[in-house]
Amino acid sequence: MEALLQQSRAMCPFLKRSSPTTLRSLATATRPSTSPGGGTMTNLQRIARRCPVMSKALAVQSARMTGTKRFTSSAAGVPGTGAPKPTRASPGKRALHSTGGNGANMSTEFHKEAQQIHPGLSKTTASHTAASATVSGPPRAPTATPFDYNAFYDTELQKKHQDKSYRYFNNINRLAQEFPRAHTTSKEERVTVWCSNDYLGMGRNPEVLSAMHKTLDTYGAGAGGTRNISGHNQHAVGLENTLAKLHGKEGALVFSSCYVANDATLATLGSKLPDCVILSDSLNHASMIQGIRHSGAKKMVFKHNDLVDLEAKLASLPLHIPKIIAFESVYSMCGSIAPIEAICDLADKYGAITFLDEVHAVGMYGPHGAGVAEHLDYEVYASQGTANPISTKGTVMDRIDIITGTLGKAYGCVGGYIAGSAAFVDTIRSLAPGFIFTTSLPPATMAGADAAIQYQSRHQQDRVLQQLHTRAVKQSFKNLDIPVIPNPSHIVPLLVGDAELAKQASDKLLEEHGIYVQAINYPTVPRGEERLRITPTPGHTQDLRDHLVESVNAVWNDLGIKRASDWKAMGGFVGVGVEAAELENQPIWTDSQLNMQPNETLEAAVEREFQAAVPRMKAGNANAKPIGSIAANPIGGPIPVAAAA
Amino acid sequence: MEALLQQSRAMCPFLKRSSPTTLRSLATATRPSTSPGGGTMTNLQRIARRCPVMSKALAVQSARMTGTKRFTSSAAGVPGTGAPKPTRASPGKRALHSTGGNGANMSTEFHKEAQQIHPGLSKTTASHTAASATVSGPPRAPTATPFDYNAFYDTELQKKHQDKSYRYFNNINRLAQEFPRAHTTSKEERVTVWCSNDYLGMGRNPEVLSAMHKTLDTYGAGAGGTRNISGHNQHAVGLENTLAKLHGKEGALVFSSCYVANDATLATLGSKLPDCVILSDSLNHASMIQGIRHSGAKKMVFKHNDLVDLEAKLASLPLHIPKIIAFESVYSMCGSIAPIEAICDLADKYGAITFLDEVHAVGMYGPHGAGVAEHLDYEVYASQGTANPISTKGTVMDRIDIITGTLGKAYGCVGGYIAGSAAFVDTIRSLAPGFIFTTSLPPATMAGADAAIQYQSRHQQDRVLQQLHTRAVKQSFKNLDIPVIPNPSHIVPLLVGDAELAKQASDKLLEEHGIYVQAINYPTVPRGEERLRITPTPGHTQDLRDHLVESVNAVWNDLGIKRASDWKAMGGFVGVGVEAAELENQPIWTDSQLNMQPNETLEAAVEREFQAAVPRMKAGNANAKPIGSIAANPIGGPIPVAAAA
Repeated sequence: MEALLQQSRAMCPFLKRSSPTTLRSLATATRPSTSPGGGTMTNLQRIARRCPVMSKALAVQSARMTGTKRFTSSAAGVPGTGAPKPTRASPGKRALHSTGGNGANMSTEFHKEAQQIHPGLSKTTASHTAASATVSGPPRAPTATPFDYNAFYDTELQKKHQDKSYRYFNNINRLAQEFPRAHTTSKEERVTVWCSNDYLGMGRNPEVLSAMHKTLDTYGAGAGGTRNISGHNQHAVGLENTLAKLHGKEGALVFSSCYVANDATLATLGSKLPDCVILSDSLNHASMIQGIRHSGAKKMVFKHNDLVDLEAKLASLPLHIPKIIAFESVYSMCGSIAPIEAICDLADKYGAITFLDEVHAVGMYGPHGAGVAEHLDYEVYASQGTANPISTKGTVMDRIDIITGTLGKAYGCVGGYIAGSAAFVDTIRSLAPGFIFTTSLPPATMAGADAAIQYQSRHQQDRVLQQLHTRAVKQSFKNLDIPVIPNPSHIVPLLVGDAELAKQASDKLLEEHGIYVQAINYPTVPRGEERLRITPTPGHTQDLRDHLVESVNAVWNDLGIKRASDWKAMGGFVGVGVEAAELENQPIWTDSQLNMQPNETLEAAVEREFQAAVPRMKAGNANAKPIGSIAANPIGGPIPVAAAA
Repeated sequence: MEALLQQSRAMCPFLKRSSPTTLRSLATATRPSTSPGGGTMTNLQRIARRCPVMSKALAVQSARMTGTKRFTSSAAGVPGTGAPKPTRASPGKRALHSTGGNGANMSTEFHKEAQQIHPGLSKTTASHTAASATVSGPPRAPTATPFDYNAFYDTELQKKHQDKSYRYFNNINRLAQEFPRAHTTSKEERVTVWCSNDYLGMGRNPEVLSAMHKTLDTYGAGAGGTRNISGHNQHAVGLENTLAKLHGKEGALVFSSCYVANDATLATLGSKLPDCVILSDSLNHASMIQGIRHSGAKKMVFKHNDLVDLEAKLASLPLHIPKIIAFESVYSMCGSIAPIEAICDLADKYGAITFLDEVHAVGMYGPHGAGVAEHLDYEVYASQGTANPISTKGTVMDRIDIITGTLGKAYGCVGGYIAGSAAFVDTIRSLAPGFIFTTSLPPATMAGADAAIQYQSRHQQDRVLQQLHTRAVKQSFKNLDIPVIPNPSHIVPLLVGDAELAKQASDKLLEEHGIYVQAINYPTVPRGEERLRITPTPGHTQDLRDHLVESVNAVWNDLGIKRASDWKAMGGFVGVGVEAAELENQPIWTDSQLNMQPNETLEAAVEREFQAAVPRMKAGNANAKPIGSIAANPIGGPIPVAAAA
């Protein structure tokens, strides 16, 4: 029943909005009615008759079974409204789906109104008035009560307040020259930002800013049109070439955001591929969920990162129908990483294509920052570069059919993209309304993003330092029994487990400690899994880290938030207090990839890498020579990596 | 039938993808089958049985009519595959929608695969193997042919080529310092852009660029997060305040684009308002059509700008259910303008709210550039400003519930927004995934857009000059019998009426005359209504206009494209060659609003306004004093307008 419901809900807006419990009770409850066939109908059948698709089918079926006379008899009155049942002569339920008349589809409802307007008229006359109104002249204003829109808004907002999911935005102004510090509403007040997705501080990178300033002056503020109508230019061409090269693909296409890229691409593929089924990881981002919903394709949700469940679902489908496995490399809110290579194996075995969202990974993983898929063949890409597709044939990144990414997180700008085969990209370019009918990103934004990608493809230091800072922060929390949800990535999620507490902790950190970490509550994470999500950057120096850890510890004490040992005593939760989870979640960046020397402590490595980076970070000199053992590498050229050699 | 189909297509992905002709033939054609009831089924019924919603209803209905025994008998084989019909013991069609088993919804299909894998097995055994595969261990790889994704892409692209709707992007680099000129792929080659939506040249406005440069340096390239997680800042607050003031509303909310704003807002309202019906103008933009589709709400399309049709549809609905009238002020591709005030009257009468897309109007109409709704009460707003909502009570703009607009056209940047009551805006802010789960616009973009709006709220000259240039261009075309689709706005659509010809005309203008005007073909406009869409700006001086008109005339000759008189001889088409259409479409900017003196010729007025604007345009001095009779007016302050006094 669940599987059927899931499938149906993807297709039918009514089912989508109704809970399984409601549907079950509708399908079993019956009540007497004057339905066409007489006798009883389930309530689900009653509702089905209001659906234009269902009613048509039911009518055809009924007609075949028992002849057509029933359609001339009267149907049920509108239940619950107290309106009188129409007389035999008036149009009954069927009129609701009549194809005749003036094209209005809800004439029965209007008849009811007409009766309210003209209470003195006989029902037949009222119906007649209603039916002819649009032909014989403008209808009179109805006198019943119109819908109360303001009450609706208030109710919706009240619900958000009641379940503690109402969002309060914090006014945070990240200062380019004081990264990772920001000012609040007051220009004088400073806070340290610990939850930005500008993971590498590229938003203040001098090469990026310089490219943007130059482009602004030469080409102006905006693109001035859609890509098709005067909004296509050298910056779009250049950026898409860079992105295609980065991922070793034939083509790439830039969108307003990766939300739009995911939504538009999945909606287009899912609706155009005949009988397409989309297999979606249960923790997929809202943009993918929306895209799948909008596609109208069949959706099968597999358990998060669960290969057995995914394979079972793939195996249940015929080989010849198109299937898309949609998943992420780094899951933003828990930091888990997908078994990408094994998913490629399954895709090959069952004739599926892979759709990999690398939004939280581009810039952050792999020797050129192309993401986790590149990282999985670290040595191959470090030594050969990405410009030569032949050299990367058979790598994990090469095997992925569709990669999507963002320009707004590690690349510090805004916008999103897809990369894949030339024919795939051209198909989406030609068919996706979300790409076609919208203004292009500004030339300066595209130039800035292009500069950021190229910079990160040449420099390893930011990624390395970010990973070392992540390790250091996770270790410090662990030492203080603060519950970090274990994961192999750069995300540091602290489990709170209560919406109100999470908000209080966030507020306290901001107000009492000058630390900005947003609380992550439902619906971004499931209820009960509320957390603080911390994202260290290369700019989060020792003093800032110490301050963070001490402040969090104080807040945990003040609010009596559960420690890791408390969760362990309760049997563990989302990996916290579960020893196996700790062991399974070793960092994906290995010690050697981070240039850690044998027997070197984490502290020593952090300090060494940080000191090496200081001149570049302080000077803001983008042309500074690469530091340490990692040489510069323009996209396509080799990166000699000492530790990997 | 059409009305039913329209309604059904909004709800059912299958119907959405099928043409009415296909459906009609499916509904009438029958073929013998071994269906549950025996006898014949229409092909539509056969298809209906594959739908999880329909099949359930049909099964219930069948069971009620003839008992349940049929469900234990075998169903039809899969037609066209040559697969053997299942034996009595194997699961038949019903298994396709079984609620039992391993959660896979297509077990029948999988059984077919299993039989192909294990041809030696009896069918029953094969089915058993298949059913237990996901439980007892990893299934073996299937051996049939997987779906050919590349062939699918090729076919889709081939279709676009065949129907001439394949889009070729032109590489056009608009030069801020040479507006409205651009360079092509070659930096040396110049063309004049005649189809940009940077209608007023704000993309190169010094105040805008200065705000962006400053913000870039201080706050960096990107926002660094969603609005909820570190992406909310003073620029968002400031911009939304400016937008709310501009439209005289309590609140505003900024999105990645107005495509996203329309899509997210309509999808959210339509899905959350109980039993909502959305009444949509037949020429509405793709973003609204998508939003309505994504909402799952009932949709009623009314004829373009047709109040009688709209009222008939409103009147057919009960007063108490929520209704949204979604429409535009200026329709981009034909330049028509909606009867906004009359639509407000209908909304009041029938308890609907109004959703007005002012994307092509903001910056362009009204004394502060707030759009056509403001323009309709020109004198009120010119004399009183928009800061005091009390003074604007009862105006058309005040009566509109929801206004959406863009920062990417007349305001020269990128991004979109909604404006309305505080509760409405807060509801969308709290519920719309397309707002919640995406990175904010960069601070510099928001600062630039804010500067553009404020600039245009203070200065009338750009709008006035743009309108005068539009009049001049339309008049020149008319003098040469070039077919301009008549309209009261700033859009100059030249009717071509053929996809291939339109593209050839566009190519010829670019290659032979250095003029860039994109051809507008299906699906942006209906087939047969292909056109060139020309958008004059304040920067299109006399010499550029003369060159345009001469070049278009030459291309019309070269390609033998129909003249206005040709269309007239054929009885007229889309208003071309229809005298009444010319008379009905007087410019919405009146002579007096354009400061035209009594008996002054259009040429003289253009020249006077242009000469007055030259110093400011040439100097690029944003602080230049207002020119002519129109004084500067910060948002909220009065604008003394000589002509209106």
